[in-house]
Amino acid sequence: MDPSQVKVPPLMDLTIDNITENVNLINSGNPDPRFKYVLERLVVHLHAFARETRLSTQEWAAGIQFLTKTGQICTDVRQEFILLSDILGLSLLVDSIDHPKPPNSTEGTVLGPFHTHDAHTLDHGASMSHDEKGEPLLVLCTAKDVNGKPIPGVKIDIWETDSSGHYDVQHAGRTEPDGRCVMISDDQGVFWFKAIVPVPYPIPHDGPVGQLLKTLRRHPMRPAHMHFMFEKEGFDHLITALYLRGDPYETSDAVFGVKNSLIVDLGKVDKATAEKYGVDEGIALLKHDFVLITDEESSKLREENSKKALEALGRRVKIVQGLPVPEVD
Amino acid sequence: MDPSQVKVPPLMDLTIDNITENVNLINSGNPDPRFKYVLERLVVHLHAFARETRLSTQEWAAGIQFLTKTGQICTDVRQEFILLSDILGLSLLVDSIDHPKPPNSTEGTVLGPFHTHDAHTLDHGASMSHDEKGEPLLVLCTAKDVNGKPIPGVKIDIWETDSSGHYDVQHAGRTEPDGRCVMISDDQGVFWFKAIVPVPYPIPHDGPVGQLLKTLRRHPMRPAHMHFMFEKEGFDHLITALYLRGDPYETSDAVFGVKNSLIVDLGKVDKATAEKYGVDEGIALLKHDFVLITDEESSKLREENSKKALEALGRRVKIVQGLPVPEVD
Repeated sequence: MDPSQVKVPPLMDLTIDNITENVNLINSGNPDPRFKYVLERLVVHLHAFARETRLSTQEWAAGIQFLTKTGQICTDVRQEFILLSDILGLSLLVDSIDHPKPPNSTEGTVLGPFHTHDAHTLDHGASMSHDEKGEPLLVLCTAKDVNGKPIPGVKIDIWETDSSGHYDVQHAGRTEPDGRCVMISDDQGVFWFKAIVPVPYPIPHDGPVGQLLKTLRRHPMRPAHMHFMFEKEGFDHLITALYLRGDPYETSDAVFGVKNSLIVDLGKVDKATAEKYGVDEGIALLKHDFVLITDEESSKLREENSKKALEALGRRVKIVQGLPVPEVD
Repeated sequence: MDPSQVKVPPLMDLTIDNITENVNLINSGNPDPRFKYVLERLVVHLHAFARETRLSTQEWAAGIQFLTKTGQICTDVRQEFILLSDILGLSLLVDSIDHPKPPNSTEGTVLGPFHTHDAHTLDHGASMSHDEKGEPLLVLCTAKDVNGKPIPGVKIDIWETDSSGHYDVQHAGRTEPDGRCVMISDDQGVFWFKAIVPVPYPIPHDGPVGQLLKTLRRHPMRPAHMHFMFEKEGFDHLITALYLRGDPYETSDAVFGVKNSLIVDLGKVDKATAEKYGVDEGIALLKHDFVLITDEESSKLREENSKKALEALGRRVKIVQGLPVPEVD
């Protein structure tokens, strides 16, 4: 881009009172109305935050340092910015906004920073955890639509920690994925596998986010859970998890992910089940039926919610590709 | 900290409508009232941003990626988060809030990401740039208080680019500082040195911030300027710069730093001046009198402005160590 060809409003002598509108003015050369709207609201809130707190230069510098460290600790297998978003409640909020769920479907929750794209696709009945210290668990699930009809061919990502509360990527020298797999639901919407009973664990707290939690006198613990992510064309992408009832951190999850409808009771494998699935009698059993909604149902609900929420804020918007942009007169 | 000893409100089934208050509730265990207030406003605005834009999971993930890249490109000599703050107008806003200036004093402006702490302290008359391709410039300055009284012993950091528009730290293999120095004002408040005529230059635009500017159809240019930073106990820390009049980017500075009162006209060194200062006749001359305010003047103005601004927002605050915290009944 040739800088001399760019048209901008004259920007000089900007003050506390006029800088926001001028920054948004120069940013409005951006041709994408959705990006323009998102950035405009970002600048408005960023500036309002500084104005309302009367943010000092020293505090600003501390913030710059914090963000820099947060970025610098990120690697291919560590995502500190997702952790930051998680502990500030942003991740759960965004999931709630983008993936609204009608009452008869499975609720979503936070993705967290530990999903990877290299999990092996396993056959039903396979073991997805090779941690011999873990307590054996048989997991029997189905994926169905809101009318109870099985959904075959759903790609399901599943991941959990080992018995020490660490995901595979948290161990140095990881060569193969473990404690994670991909399954494809069968004609009856069924998928099942062997795993270990999830345990509560701390989110990584040796970095900037852990330091922030400590300053806030907050613990870094998550209650025991197993992650599930469902993908199939035509269905809304579902990121969720199941939580074990009675966990000591059930009502104080560091990342705000627990929902009552996602708390499950573990059973015990009886003799018939043990024989049918080829596992030991008496081991722990997790049974769950997941209910997916269609893209269409999700889009409709999302758009209705958007319009209602933004009208309540006095904004006139139109929905373009599922997301609001300002209505221009 | 023993997680089981931490008291928190029960957090479960959080929704779009109640997550903000609950995040602030759990964060309120933090014992520092100022930090509590700053973080509360941060969470409120972060969440409001997501709510007002109906931020999608995909957009959230793009934001996480952008912040991660911004942190990862930072090094000891590159500060991409300051650049981001600069091009979003936050840096100028924070300087305006934290360092308010009465009309008879020198205005502040953005620090930018290129100040270092290793510049040599030079004697008056020394050359602070060794770029032989630069156009020679004699700089004659004073530091005075608002009553015109000279201020001796002020530590002044000065930095500028070379004639190619790059700061020393932008060149690979930098071993020594160049184009930067520290001076101490003499008994008459005078400090003077040899430099080169500043040139306009682009902020580093090969990283995430440059990509953002491009997406926004904004140029990355800054008008020609020289940075000055003044420190002396009892006086308000002054971060400022002088801009050359008539620069093509005078009204479109990528970081919003230009103020009319900071634009200067370059003169030419006459015969008497050339003899007095030992430079060639006819070279460019920059003369400027900087006016510093005391800490006391600055604090008073800052506190008055804070109270006025926050009262206008309907907030009852008290000022603690110069910064507002909520007034608790």
